[in-house]
Amino acid sequence: MYRTTTCGALRLSNVGEQVTLAGWVQKARRMGGMTFIDLRDRYGITQLVFNESVVGEALVAEAEKLGREYVIQIVGIVSERENKNPKLPTGDIEIAVASLRILNPSEVPPFTIEDDTDGGDDLRMKYRYLDLRRSCVRSNLELRHRFALAVRRYLDAEGFLEVETPVLIKSTPEGARDFVVPSRMNPNQFYALPQSPQTFKQLLMVSGFDRYFQIVKCFRDEDLRADRQPEFTQIDCEMSFVEQEDVLSIFEGMTQYLFKELLNLDIPMPFPRMSWHEAMKRYGSDKPDTRFGMEFVEVKDVLQGHGFSVFDNAAYIGAIVAPGAASYTRKQLDALTDFVKRPQVGASGMVYARIEADGTVKSSVDKFYTQETLQSLATETGAKASDLILILSGDDAMKVRKQLSELRLEMGSQLGLRDKTKFSCLWVVDFPLFEWDEETQRFYAMHHPFTSPKPEDIPLLDSDPGAVRANAYDMVINGVEVGGGSIRIHDSKLQARMFDLLGFTPEKAQEQFGFLMNAFKYGAPPHGGLAYGLDRFVSLFAGLDSIRDCIAFPKNNAGRDVMIDAPSLIDQEQLDELHLRLTPATK
Amino acid sequence: MYRTTTCGALRLSNVGEQVTLAGWVQKARRMGGMTFIDLRDRYGITQLVFNESVVGEALVAEAEKLGREYVIQIVGIVSERENKNPKLPTGDIEIAVASLRILNPSEVPPFTIEDDTDGGDDLRMKYRYLDLRRSCVRSNLELRHRFALAVRRYLDAEGFLEVETPVLIKSTPEGARDFVVPSRMNPNQFYALPQSPQTFKQLLMVSGFDRYFQIVKCFRDEDLRADRQPEFTQIDCEMSFVEQEDVLSIFEGMTQYLFKELLNLDIPMPFPRMSWHEAMKRYGSDKPDTRFGMEFVEVKDVLQGHGFSVFDNAAYIGAIVAPGAASYTRKQLDALTDFVKRPQVGASGMVYARIEADGTVKSSVDKFYTQETLQSLATETGAKASDLILILSGDDAMKVRKQLSELRLEMGSQLGLRDKTKFSCLWVVDFPLFEWDEETQRFYAMHHPFTSPKPEDIPLLDSDPGAVRANAYDMVINGVEVGGGSIRIHDSKLQARMFDLLGFTPEKAQEQFGFLMNAFKYGAPPHGGLAYGLDRFVSLFAGLDSIRDCIAFPKNNAGRDVMIDAPSLIDQEQLDELHLRLTPATK
Repeated sequence: MYRTTTCGALRLSNVGEQVTLAGWVQKARRMGGMTFIDLRDRYGITQLVFNESVVGEALVAEAEKLGREYVIQIVGIVSERENKNPKLPTGDIEIAVASLRILNPSEVPPFTIEDDTDGGDDLRMKYRYLDLRRSCVRSNLELRHRFALAVRRYLDAEGFLEVETPVLIKSTPEGARDFVVPSRMNPNQFYALPQSPQTFKQLLMVSGFDRYFQIVKCFRDEDLRADRQPEFTQIDCEMSFVEQEDVLSIFEGMTQYLFKELLNLDIPMPFPRMSWHEAMKRYGSDKPDTRFGMEFVEVKDVLQGHGFSVFDNAAYIGAIVAPGAASYTRKQLDALTDFVKRPQVGASGMVYARIEADGTVKSSVDKFYTQETLQSLATETGAKASDLILILSGDDAMKVRKQLSELRLEMGSQLGLRDKTKFSCLWVVDFPLFEWDEETQRFYAMHHPFTSPKPEDIPLLDSDPGAVRANAYDMVINGVEVGGGSIRIHDSKLQARMFDLLGFTPEKAQEQFGFLMNAFKYGAPPHGGLAYGLDRFVSLFAGLDSIRDCIAFPKNNAGRDVMIDAPSLIDQEQLDELHLRLTPATK
Repeated sequence: MYRTTTCGALRLSNVGEQVTLAGWVQKARRMGGMTFIDLRDRYGITQLVFNESVVGEALVAEAEKLGREYVIQIVGIVSERENKNPKLPTGDIEIAVASLRILNPSEVPPFTIEDDTDGGDDLRMKYRYLDLRRSCVRSNLELRHRFALAVRRYLDAEGFLEVETPVLIKSTPEGARDFVVPSRMNPNQFYALPQSPQTFKQLLMVSGFDRYFQIVKCFRDEDLRADRQPEFTQIDCEMSFVEQEDVLSIFEGMTQYLFKELLNLDIPMPFPRMSWHEAMKRYGSDKPDTRFGMEFVEVKDVLQGHGFSVFDNAAYIGAIVAPGAASYTRKQLDALTDFVKRPQVGASGMVYARIEADGTVKSSVDKFYTQETLQSLATETGAKASDLILILSGDDAMKVRKQLSELRLEMGSQLGLRDKTKFSCLWVVDFPLFEWDEETQRFYAMHHPFTSPKPEDIPLLDSDPGAVRANAYDMVINGVEVGGGSIRIHDSKLQARMFDLLGFTPEKAQEQFGFLMNAFKYGAPPHGGLAYGLDRFVSLFAGLDSIRDCIAFPKNNAGRDVMIDAPSLIDQEQLDELHLRLTPATK
């Protein structure tokens, strides 16, 4: 028996008990003939005291040799503390140590094991096993554990069966780039790792499983960003005999349950819904952050025809009103102008107008506009005294909206309107079925090729595919797309038509997805579903900026695990067995 | 709304209600102006009746067009059945159909969707999505779902945290063959898929996670057998500050809980324990089926020195007593002899001795033995009237025992002693730390290189490594090793010594496992754990012969998924991106 209890359990009611504890030395200090040690484990911190006058010199000498992160075991008596620490659940007691055993010494760790550590990102990733000792990191993973359990509890109660689908599957050219796995038993052939279990969950619906889910690793070989990892986890769900309304209702119920169980927050149902077109128009984004207003107002009517050529030539002029920001300094406004000018945007420079305390409007383009016109602008946008109007314009309405959306989010952050402890849930619905790609001159599926068009839009498939709306929906919380899905196609002919529109030859469609189209010939039920990004969802609940912080062993932006040093070279023998040769990489 | 209820829900109490149902046509039959259809979904079967005199010719004509596996939706009134079917939960009622809608027609399926199907293995695997419609197949997956949930419930209550470890890791030469994944971002380097999360779970212990588990996919690129799949699922667990006793106690508790929750069986605790040496001596196996006795009796003392050279020259002579099998015919005995002679065994031919009703013994080697000696044999083995003694002998005791173990299992099956609804649990403990491999002339770790030796055997590491016992344990149920584990090494020097004994140079050990040995320098706690094979465990609970039957989409013996046709060729462009070239495979 290494311990009789943990470092988080003892209270005043335990005073007088003999206990055995084991854990890590958090810190040690010497004070007036006494040595105090904070002993840490996952459950908490307990103060140990070595009283020289009681236990003798030898034990105290040994205690003084203990360094940070030593693993020790002690036996002692629970005693009431003189100087209680109200910040610790165990702060009323300490252990008068009678015996000490060092279970494992520790070298001095490369950074301090404190919430407020002195270790930089790279160092903490290399020694991730030490980083994970910090309670602020571990608590994210504890939340993830409880989150996943709550998801399973809810879905099980709703009749969903968790079914594991294969990881070694088949490479498909559609979607993101696959990771592939050479097969030794089938030389020159490759498995692919799934980007999602999409086709398998649809096959389970064909199999009559009725309600399926899986919390499952997925893989995409894409260039990485802060919120992307080559392997990530989905909560993958599918239901049969459902319409969009059924799916939304089940999953807003799940979300409400999760908020209540994990954060003790009451989220009202049903969630607001917004069409994709409306979201683009009001927020310039298909995942608007609806914790705050600052909605777009189109102000072409007010501002064109007054001789300001930037506006006069614009296809779109949009404004947002930043409440109370009229006091922004020149420097702050210049910084915003710079923010807007960041690369890859299409708007002309930012124009602003302040509403002074007396109601007069001062703008950066005063020489083109009368006070009367500027007052109309204030009226049109709803700006009031001490507000700041920010205006972007340009030729390409979509691009300007995207940029105005970024500006809106930035202003929301600056004005403290994006509180991480407040949550605003939204369904974005009625996505376009296709996106046109200029470069390859073809349509791509906005969600994926299995998404069904709205029945009333099916005739448009022939005449105007770009106008077809999909039975697709995203759940957006605080501007984060936590999940998305659709009602699927369950008719093999319609599915074949989709592949045709996506530029597949019938042969290619058959080769890649023949098993699915074939399955649809044997009584496929109407079905639909949705997948959540677990990493994102948990990050949102934990108030994290990056999904990495809720992943135990994440990879860096080059796809490397710097702790284990993977990927790495493999033996020639392994390559030979796989019938592979390497070709030199040209950087 | 596609349905108001399911095909398994309606009872007499619902009579008179109007319902909407959706599902698959199981079968249709016509009888005296009525058409009856069995409508099926995951939840059950409900009988539909189309009464021509009520609903008219048109609807009945449409109903008659319905083929097997059509997906339909009906509206009708719940009515009491005249001919009740006590075998169905819904057998007291039927639905008087008022309207019918075909949601999706079906081609004639390639085999019947019945428990007792006419489809062969290959056909069912190709159309696995139809095979999964059979309730006997689906119920295995439902059990798997409930099994995994119960595991999570138990472990969560015991303070275990489920932590996801990475799938894209590093290839290691020890153990089975890795599947590898070429990295595009790190050209000429490869990830490996994990054979188990062993090192990661140990790092989590170093991180102070204290109690970890994960239900997780693992991968081995090995030649396949009926009970092996290239991807399989483990229940992976690890605990800190524990000794062997703590681990065994938690996990026999879990097993007891699972039996109670899922099969409503009471399994007594603690489970019996047997050392590896004892298991080999008494059963010739490290995973003995203890549902029945028939233990080995060594009979060298009785049978040597009587002029029968086969026995006289044998290093080992072992007997088992098959109760009541004295009546075995010559043909049955010949079949057993053939069974014993199957390839890859080392024993000489099988010798038998029957105990007649009057107590006399008749053996196949009567000419060498007196009745008195044969009576001693009976006494020694405990054989009684009408029993059959089966004897194997040979030079290599281990090989003969292995063969006698097979014979014992075969006899247990033939005599009906291996009832699939009875369960006998056992811990096998004190495994040898190493196995000697003649071919490569080196030691291999019997479990894995992280298993700790028994402290009292550590001095033997230098003098007699083969005699060192490990702190390792397997859970065996009905002769199936469902799980196994060990107390791990947590000392970096001892770990380095282990790698040395396993033939690693210090450089190779550092390259492969440096991160782990390094981690041990920063305060690693004593820890140990265990991993269950989920597929095997569920198969055992479901009484299945192959783990394939509890896997939704298994692969065949060539590692192929014949349904989706994977693995497959990939595009030249993909190979180029990965800097790979294929070399021709020579068969």
